[in-house]
Amino acid sequence: MSEILQTCTIKVSFGDCDPAGIVYYPNHFRWFDATFHALLQRFGGHAAVSRKLGSIGIGLIEVGGAFRAPAEDGDALVLTARLVEWREKTLRIAYEGRIDDRLTVEGFEVRGLFIREDGQLRAGRMAPLREMLEAGAGTADA
Amino acid sequence: MSEILQTCTIKVSFGDCDPAGIVYYPNHFRWFDATFHALLQRFGGHAAVSRKLGSIGIGLIEVGGAFRAPAEDGDALVLTARLVEWREKTLRIAYEGRIDDRLTVEGFEVRGLFIREDGQLRAGRMAPLREMLEAGAGTADA
Amino acid sequence: MSEILQTCTIKVSFGDCDPAGIVYYPNHFRWFDATFHALLQRFGGHAAVSRKLGSIGIGLIEVGGAFRAPAEDGDALVLTARLVEWREKTLRIAYEGRIDDRLTVEGFEVRGLFIREDGQLRAGRMAPLREMLEAGAGTADA
Amino acid sequence: MSEILQTCTIKVSFGDCDPAGIVYYPNHFRWFDATFHALLQRFGGHAAVSRKLGSIGIGLIEVGGAFRAPAEDGDALVLTARLVEWREKTLRIAYEGRIDDRLTVEGFEVRGLFIREDGQLRAGRMAPLREMLEAGAGTADA
Repeated sequence: MSEILQTCTIKVSFGDCDPAGIVYYPNHFRWFDATFHALLQRFGGHAAVSRKLGSIGIGLIEVGGAFRAPAEDGDALVLTARLVEWREKTLRIAYEGRIDDRLTVEGFEVRGLFIREDGQLRAGRMAPLREMLEAGAGTADA
Repeated sequence: MSEILQTCTIKVSFGDCDPAGIVYYPNHFRWFDATFHALLQRFGGHAAVSRKLGSIGIGLIEVGGAFRAPAEDGDALVLTARLVEWREKTLRIAYEGRIDDRLTVEGFEVRGLFIREDGQLRAGRMAPLREMLEAGAGTADA
Repeated sequence: MSEILQTCTIKVSFGDCDPAGIVYYPNHFRWFDATFHALLQRFGGHAAVSRKLGSIGIGLIEVGGAFRAPAEDGDALVLTARLVEWREKTLRIAYEGRIDDRLTVEGFEVRGLFIREDGQLRAGRMAPLREMLEAGAGTADA
Repeated sequence: MSEILQTCTIKVSFGDCDPAGIVYYPNHFRWFDATFHALLQRFGGHAAVSRKLGSIGIGLIEVGGAFRAPAEDGDALVLTARLVEWREKTLRIAYEGRIDDRLTVEGFEVRGLFIREDGQLRAGRMAPLREMLEAGAGTADA
């Protein structure tokens, strides 16, 4: 079974940076999230995948990041997402970002299938999502 | 003299959209701004250009946008910036965004050279910026 | 008939600013939008209002802004939204932002009632929204 | 010695939310960061504090968050930052967000004093920052 991964290249822009001239850190999480959603595009996108699974979304339970080196306006950040651990109700995704082969950011997301029931959110089983993604497993660049 | 323009392709992502499922409109301005800064990258980037011109930045004076059709997760938005009018202390940039050749967004920015003097910002003359950009005029895609 | 307006105070933060140390301009539109939505909160919020009106949202058709003076980390920006013009299918909102009584930003939004029909968006009549808002017209600070 | 903490109330708005109708998670980190910077405002703000310490900024080394319950348009999120651990070159801040006393988000930031030397960033000693903050220690609401 091949590993499922997705790579996106982010052109870091002036407006992504703070008064110190380096990336304002919440933007790294926008890019993590966008890379995961680029992966879902290979399966029809978040809306289509969620609809098939009877979920309102594949949302965040936990997230973390470590910043190894600054990124600045003009940098091309190559961000890779790897699906690294499936549990009954969670999926762990590992992220790694590099600029010219230098590691600049690492992190992870733990996601769940959010299902709305009686106005409350609960976590659904991940097996149907896993089957869907593994059926089309592989690598993609965007 | 050839027209100066810059084109960027934005992969619209889930997180760029609001609860109605369409792009949250301030993001269109992030993309306008990023396209202008991609153009500046051809001249060393905003920091280098500003330094050469003795400016703290090529900032916004006025901006506008009109939204012709919605953009959604998964769309590839092709955004073009054109430098359309140089005045003594302003530059007007016209923007046009298309998804599969359908016009989705139009707009403009009026920018000035911000110079900090005695703790105040004032607008500088645009001629040196114009010369710099026209010396390397042309088209670029990013 | 009293004018309908809404005032919000935004604490400008470090992360709202760009490498020049002043507010990254798309954030001004986030604040315009948030002030309009604060107004809708007085009527149950955007989701409830849209549901009553059979709309997917009260979205943007056109927008503009002019930046009169810079805003920086630590500034308290007092932003006022005024509903200034109702047309058959549009509502125009005027915005004005001040820091210590100094005008820093002005702008407007033209909004429509977006209705989804056969997978397309079309603009609905504004009269029902106008009636709803004018029934509870007045001023609010948030 | 009293604990140093800062509380901010965030009015969650429509535009902070994603197509699932709940807060787009990178916004939680914007709010963490803004709460830390609100704390710095009690000492003159990030720019003044950094200047005194010879630093380009008090930036991020590591960050994490866990999302316990969704936040939506109209919610008032009360976010508290606590300075919980000083090490030689790092400061750990713990965050807790509540809506009507229900815990919705928890997290942390590890920050360092970034000093630019020969074009590189390095981490400075935290003792001078600690002294500055503890001299004016206490609680503040914003």
